[in-house]
Amino acid sequence: MLSARNKLSGKVRSIKKGDVMAEVIVEVGGGEMAALISRTSADQLDLKEGDEVRAVVKATEVMIEKD
Amino acid sequence: MLSARNKLSGKVRSIKKGDVMAEVIVEVGGGEMAALISRTSADQLDLKEGDEVRAVVKATEVMIEKD
Amino acid sequence: MLSARNKLSGKVRSIKKGDVMAEVIVEVGGGEMAALISRTSADQLDLKEGDEVRAVVKATEVMIEKD
Amino acid sequence: MLSARNKLSGKVRSIKKGDVMAEVIVEVGGGEMAALISRTSADQLDLKEGDEVRAVVKATEVMIEKD
Amino acid sequence: MLSARNKLSGKVRSIKKGDVMAEVIVEVGGGEMAALISRTSADQLDLKEGDEVRAVVKATEVMIEKD
Amino acid sequence: MLSARNKLSGKVRSIKKGDVMAEVIVEVGGGEMAALISRTSADQLDLKEGDEVRAVVKATEVMIEKD
Repeated sequence: MLSARNKLSGKVRSIKKGDVMAEVIVEVGGGEMAALISRTSADQLDLKEGDEVRAVVKATEVMIEKD
Repeated sequence: MLSARNKLSGKVRSIKKGDVMAEVIVEVGGGEMAALISRTSADQLDLKEGDEVRAVVKATEVMIEKD
Repeated sequence: MLSARNKLSGKVRSIKKGDVMAEVIVEVGGGEMAALISRTSADQLDLKEGDEVRAVVKATEVMIEKD
Repeated sequence: MLSARNKLSGKVRSIKKGDVMAEVIVEVGGGEMAALISRTSADQLDLKEGDEVRAVVKATEVMIEKD
Repeated sequence: MLSARNKLSGKVRSIKKGDVMAEVIVEVGGGEMAALISRTSADQLDLKEGDEVRAVVKATEVMIEKD
Repeated sequence: MLSARNKLSGKVRSIKKGDVMAEVIVEVGGGEMAALISRTSADQLDLKEGDEVRAVVKATEVMIEKD
């Protein structure tokens, strides 16, 4: 069990792999989440479009916006 | 417009205010998001239960978990 | 209004766009700030040299150095 | 030498020490920077109002906002 | 499997619980790692001194220092 | 002295330089640490395999995992 509680389940909509980084777009319930991870991790996870994944975020990284 | 694209709309379910930090729980479409922000910012935003807010996350902070 | 209070106004001095990421250098009052954001966000913001922008940082990400 | 290049020099305007965290406000050229660090680090650095310090930020943590 | 590859195994040396945050010190092979997580997560993980845990860090958060 | 206390000494095992980012793998006591920093910083530090460095992490970025 990981201390980071924010886990949003969804499906991978797209992956763009660069030389060092990869951008992963995940469709979650409330919209979509973009993740910038290493190309190495994207390859190790064998990420493909349509994969069922979770977008995970540590709570210290979450900001709040209010009108 | 902010470069951070991850913005999930939701309602504040609870706020716990400490001496320096505050924990805000937001109900979003795909579950809930916990945010740890400063007590000062929570006061400045006048955050209350039921407020309509957005949880905002920079994409470099998002991890991917796959079974 | 965003909970992240650190907003430094300045002018974009340079942008280097890569395949997935982009590096943006902003001249602010106290020096310069380098930002690593996604190429997608750089394109969506249509960032160009000379643009008036704000460098925004969540307070949990700021360290203090003292001699 | 640290890979994090963003270093803004300034003077500590205020410190609020809590049980676990501390909030440090630094006056820098372009405004002010709020830092949330551990109470332990604030004590180890012996931070006081008026101290000359640098606010340090990794570039991956910097967002860009444009009107 | 999580995209964050940095996982250092160790034993919890101390925990300081505050109102909102908790500081956890983990003895790992190369020294010690301090983690600032929410009090809620520390309680949910039932963290105690001597627990075998892993300190987990996303690679985008790691800086390099060289003399 | 920097407020970020987590400093793990080790040797650079590999560097992969991309257009904007660089991935640095450091062998530390308890395993290895992957760091994603800017290509610019990697060049400025003149990072090479075998270099003695420290992997530095702010405590707010550290998560705890427990079985």
